[in-house]
Amino acid sequence: MRVAVLGSTGYTGMALLRILAGHPRVGTVIAASSSRAGQMITDIDPGLAAALRSKSNGILVDVKSVVEAEPEVVFSALPHLTSARVCEPFLGSTVVIDLSADFRLPDSALFARAYGEPPPREDLQLKSCYGLSEWHQKEIRESDIIGNPGCYPTATLLPLLPLARKGLIQGKVVANAFSGISGAGRKESINLLFTERTENINAYNPGTRHRHWSEIHYHLSRSGKQLQLLFTPHLVPIKQGLGVTTSCTLREGVSAEAVEAALKEAYGARPFIRLLGDRIPETRYVRNSNRCDIGWHVEDRELLLFSAIDNLVKGASGQAVQNMNLHFGFDETEGLRIYGEF
Amino acid sequence: MRVAVLGSTGYTGMALLRILAGHPRVGTVIAASSSRAGQMITDIDPGLAAALRSKSNGILVDVKSVVEAEPEVVFSALPHLTSARVCEPFLGSTVVIDLSADFRLPDSALFARAYGEPPPREDLQLKSCYGLSEWHQKEIRESDIIGNPGCYPTATLLPLLPLARKGLIQGKVVANAFSGISGAGRKESINLLFTERTENINAYNPGTRHRHWSEIHYHLSRSGKQLQLLFTPHLVPIKQGLGVTTSCTLREGVSAEAVEAALKEAYGARPFIRLLGDRIPETRYVRNSNRCDIGWHVEDRELLLFSAIDNLVKGASGQAVQNMNLHFGFDETEGLRIYGEF
Amino acid sequence: MRVAVLGSTGYTGMALLRILAGHPRVGTVIAASSSRAGQMITDIDPGLAAALRSKSNGILVDVKSVVEAEPEVVFSALPHLTSARVCEPFLGSTVVIDLSADFRLPDSALFARAYGEPPPREDLQLKSCYGLSEWHQKEIRESDIIGNPGCYPTATLLPLLPLARKGLIQGKVVANAFSGISGAGRKESINLLFTERTENINAYNPGTRHRHWSEIHYHLSRSGKQLQLLFTPHLVPIKQGLGVTTSCTLREGVSAEAVEAALKEAYGARPFIRLLGDRIPETRYVRNSNRCDIGWHVEDRELLLFSAIDNLVKGASGQAVQNMNLHFGFDETEGLRIYGEF
Amino acid sequence: MRVAVLGSTGYTGMALLRILAGHPRVGTVIAASSSRAGQMITDIDPGLAAALRSKSNGILVDVKSVVEAEPEVVFSALPHLTSARVCEPFLGSTVVIDLSADFRLPDSALFARAYGEPPPREDLQLKSCYGLSEWHQKEIRESDIIGNPGCYPTATLLPLLPLARKGLIQGKVVANAFSGISGAGRKESINLLFTERTENINAYNPGTRHRHWSEIHYHLSRSGKQLQLLFTPHLVPIKQGLGVTTSCTLREGVSAEAVEAALKEAYGARPFIRLLGDRIPETRYVRNSNRCDIGWHVEDRELLLFSAIDNLVKGASGQAVQNMNLHFGFDETEGLRIYGEF
Repeated sequence: MRVAVLGSTGYTGMALLRILAGHPRVGTVIAASSSRAGQMITDIDPGLAAALRSKSNGILVDVKSVVEAEPEVVFSALPHLTSARVCEPFLGSTVVIDLSADFRLPDSALFARAYGEPPPREDLQLKSCYGLSEWHQKEIRESDIIGNPGCYPTATLLPLLPLARKGLIQGKVVANAFSGISGAGRKESINLLFTERTENINAYNPGTRHRHWSEIHYHLSRSGKQLQLLFTPHLVPIKQGLGVTTSCTLREGVSAEAVEAALKEAYGARPFIRLLGDRIPETRYVRNSNRCDIGWHVEDRELLLFSAIDNLVKGASGQAVQNMNLHFGFDETEGLRIYGEF
Repeated sequence: MRVAVLGSTGYTGMALLRILAGHPRVGTVIAASSSRAGQMITDIDPGLAAALRSKSNGILVDVKSVVEAEPEVVFSALPHLTSARVCEPFLGSTVVIDLSADFRLPDSALFARAYGEPPPREDLQLKSCYGLSEWHQKEIRESDIIGNPGCYPTATLLPLLPLARKGLIQGKVVANAFSGISGAGRKESINLLFTERTENINAYNPGTRHRHWSEIHYHLSRSGKQLQLLFTPHLVPIKQGLGVTTSCTLREGVSAEAVEAALKEAYGARPFIRLLGDRIPETRYVRNSNRCDIGWHVEDRELLLFSAIDNLVKGASGQAVQNMNLHFGFDETEGLRIYGEF
Repeated sequence: MRVAVLGSTGYTGMALLRILAGHPRVGTVIAASSSRAGQMITDIDPGLAAALRSKSNGILVDVKSVVEAEPEVVFSALPHLTSARVCEPFLGSTVVIDLSADFRLPDSALFARAYGEPPPREDLQLKSCYGLSEWHQKEIRESDIIGNPGCYPTATLLPLLPLARKGLIQGKVVANAFSGISGAGRKESINLLFTERTENINAYNPGTRHRHWSEIHYHLSRSGKQLQLLFTPHLVPIKQGLGVTTSCTLREGVSAEAVEAALKEAYGARPFIRLLGDRIPETRYVRNSNRCDIGWHVEDRELLLFSAIDNLVKGASGQAVQNMNLHFGFDETEGLRIYGEF
Repeated sequence: MRVAVLGSTGYTGMALLRILAGHPRVGTVIAASSSRAGQMITDIDPGLAAALRSKSNGILVDVKSVVEAEPEVVFSALPHLTSARVCEPFLGSTVVIDLSADFRLPDSALFARAYGEPPPREDLQLKSCYGLSEWHQKEIRESDIIGNPGCYPTATLLPLLPLARKGLIQGKVVANAFSGISGAGRKESINLLFTERTENINAYNPGTRHRHWSEIHYHLSRSGKQLQLLFTPHLVPIKQGLGVTTSCTLREGVSAEAVEAALKEAYGARPFIRLLGDRIPETRYVRNSNRCDIGWHVEDRELLLFSAIDNLVKGASGQAVQNMNLHFGFDETEGLRIYGEF
């Protein structure tokens, strides 16, 4: 396979290149960067350049060169609103796995609430699919445009969806999420400096204000049940890793066993989900893996859900490759780590 | 004033000694440690030893020597269940400010639920008072035994109490707290090693399982309203700092303005509380200070509260000194920092 | 006293404002910032704004307003080459303590080697003095322009100067320094992001390539002995703190006792230097203090020196205030912390 | 292949198990732990347990069970002095790769200087070999007892040996090393707590006092040239990663080109060494890889060498597997990562 990555020098682009470097089905990797076209990958990350040696000539190219190279898959790690536009030449002819928000929210009003304007390719929203790998396998296989989920939505939706779909929970869902700093991207920002972030934690964009609220809300609503969502993200001084602690209420008569059964039914056979029961996940154990660890705790009718992912892997680049595997009918785990590193 | 610190070599004991070293009303500081009596403070922390030079001979003593020295105040930074017993010789004759849990929970059943047995001095529970400085000034002035609040209860109760007391909130309170590692104490524990904690976040003792749940629940209940509490603490890789994100529901008809008014009425004139409105507190801004920063966010009837303290200062040693100031009628801020460091 | 700070929103400017907020001799603090004039300090750092309340109206001003306010001392925390030019209106009429490099190196060629052009006010270089507080007290008292030392030179020169001046060492001096990230300033730089710095250490500008090599070399040479200097700085993932491990050779016949005697003679009575003997300093113990801790280790004729400072305090803003104290004949320690925080 | 790991629950033991889990030549992994025999690996590290699923029954065993299982290779991640004794039943019959110091130093006096007593199996010292993979391939292939190098010696010797062997350097070698905290092992120690290590750097055991001085000195001396070594390690607040900055002097007439040529001759074809020229290595780029990055800087006759490894991989478990690969004639890189992770 010949695959291309647009936006190669951000954190998700670089993570994608590393995963693709070790993917047994991928023979050629075309790394594109609008800002650094013509530069050597080795100047950005020497280890990555070494890893890609047999699959790339080691030079960053522009989008025009990607078009000429006719890749079979294009991963876009570009910013929202930019991504769908830059992917223009590939839409329709090539499989596009878009890590931006541009194809995650077919509801134009909800998209506009989050991103200030309608989705750039409104016409294609219904032809694309949402790439939460564990839930949309059929669409992922059939669609040529896959909107790869955000990191917060991935970790928030995975424990909730089995319960929401079966109608086991009701009322208000309070999700508090904690993200490593790489989730904010590789941006020249004072607020992301080591000196500003070390020894510091804070919430931001609380309640319904974070863009990912719209994405979580939309896909939670599609589960068929009316649930109210409060989503409050926090920045914590780690590089990679994302945890969510979610509080919700069980419908009357729903037992702890029913919760466990629903989670096991949904995920018992899925390679990248580990159900920990009453053990609480820790982000260190999923670091560098494509796994989501899920734990839970029931007291009477109160349910607490705990989930942990690596925001750069299951929350972005790993899930994108998982979606490529699913689309092309490869084994879902090819090129991906189930277990974390050290 | 002649003051003593029991348990000088833990994090709260050391923080106490530093604050007392700079307190203008304190002339003599007696530093006691059962495990290291006879050793020099300079061998534990040379900067602290220098700071205490004019108030201490620099040698750690045992409890017997403290009794002989007849201090006017005894701060106990000993573990729960141990503390009240070691303080025996001082109870009744000396002002005791106990940083352990032993005098925080007059409800014996609730205490036993958290600590496995009834409070060691059940007979004195009603003669002692709870030292949440902003709420119990009169009792703090009049009582000779002050149970200094836990770090989680301090940061959780401060934003909630003004609203609970006025009956502005109802139903379920979901508090998620994030604590720096110093909150776990200076213990030889694999789980607290740098290598286990860096790049890691996790919840623990969720719902009603953490000991501090009992303390928060008890003092929230005393506010007169029936509220259900879910409290889930998390460990985050910072040294000092504690944040709480609390979600609750406003009673029908309660406006955002009423929330603001209640908080301003309670804290507008209090030196150690800063009301940030819709700005969200960050732990770095309160580091090394005795301040609690509070922000809030209202959406329809949903209220999110954000609070941040330094767990070693307002969450332990700083509040203990604030209580000493209140008890003896000194200015509340003497020897304490309102603003953090750098 | 009425004092002004130019460049208030960088790390050293903010550290200066915090120290001045608590300085008993300072009644008015004028905080200037070219980029943020007109903004409120509380929007940058609410704790700092609170601390300055009685000494400032809380608004950042431009340089013109500083001139009109006629301060008695101007601290400049501006970048090199900019600083001397912006300070123009004050030179000659007001005491200027310049934290940039502009008045640290009277040797124009050496300055140009480091900064690419001659010092901006070559004419004033000999009227200014180098503000290494422990060594230039007389000049600091008499000069109206004080070039405040860099962080690396402060920590490197303090242990070396007593030995160099007495001719106890010879040959090659190999200094390896480790700095917290705040030493690089508050700059929008990818290389200073949390994600790039956590879990990472690296040397940079080795041998004689770092600008501070020139400064250290110049002031070491003035000690009268011919020493060769290799200076290699490293970035380590801490916020504040700077350590130097220096290897050099004792002249024949020089004993360990002579080393200790020279250090004690130089620093035995100085409040901000602690001599630890064969104990090795740790940066945590000097954090937030104006202290330099010094340890040493002798094996035959090999001498290893260890020094630790807080780069923002003794390495910048604290030493600047120490120099103000010395210049005006105040107690050297006024407004400064001898011991660190927690 | 059937391989066993003794000391499975320390950091190097766990790193070994992860590497072996992915090693294509290894079919069975026997994980032993004296302190936790009978426990499940999943209770220690659930991701690791998942990774080992097809190669292990997931239960920790005792040494006796290892003997019965008749493994073809035994890796010992036990402490020095203990390791050789516990390995007793395997010495002579099984390939033993010992990650402790017990077979690193055939010089009994030098061993005793570092470890307080002679090597436990003095009789076998000359039958064993030193497993610095890039330098002792022939012995590694032929010997059944391989003393796996320490982390500091690996990173210090790799850049020095090509120069020392060719006689390009002379006189005094000053090596300053910076290690992540995992290098100190998984020990219940106050000094290794997150709270003690974050925001802190310090040197320890300077000059010739660290145990690894003996190991480095011995193997540097074997290169045939008389060099004086000062080795000073530092602890820095990272988990994994080790850097060394080494200063030495070129013999008269030796050019920068000769340095480069010697390094290229030694390492140009070696998969795990990257020569960066005047680029300085950063530990983040080798994290989780078995690579050593080397940079250098020449000024006249002064040479500065920079090396970076992951202390748990090339500094311990990765090199142990590299030695297994070399011993059995597998490709040197099998099961090992050349490039780091993210």
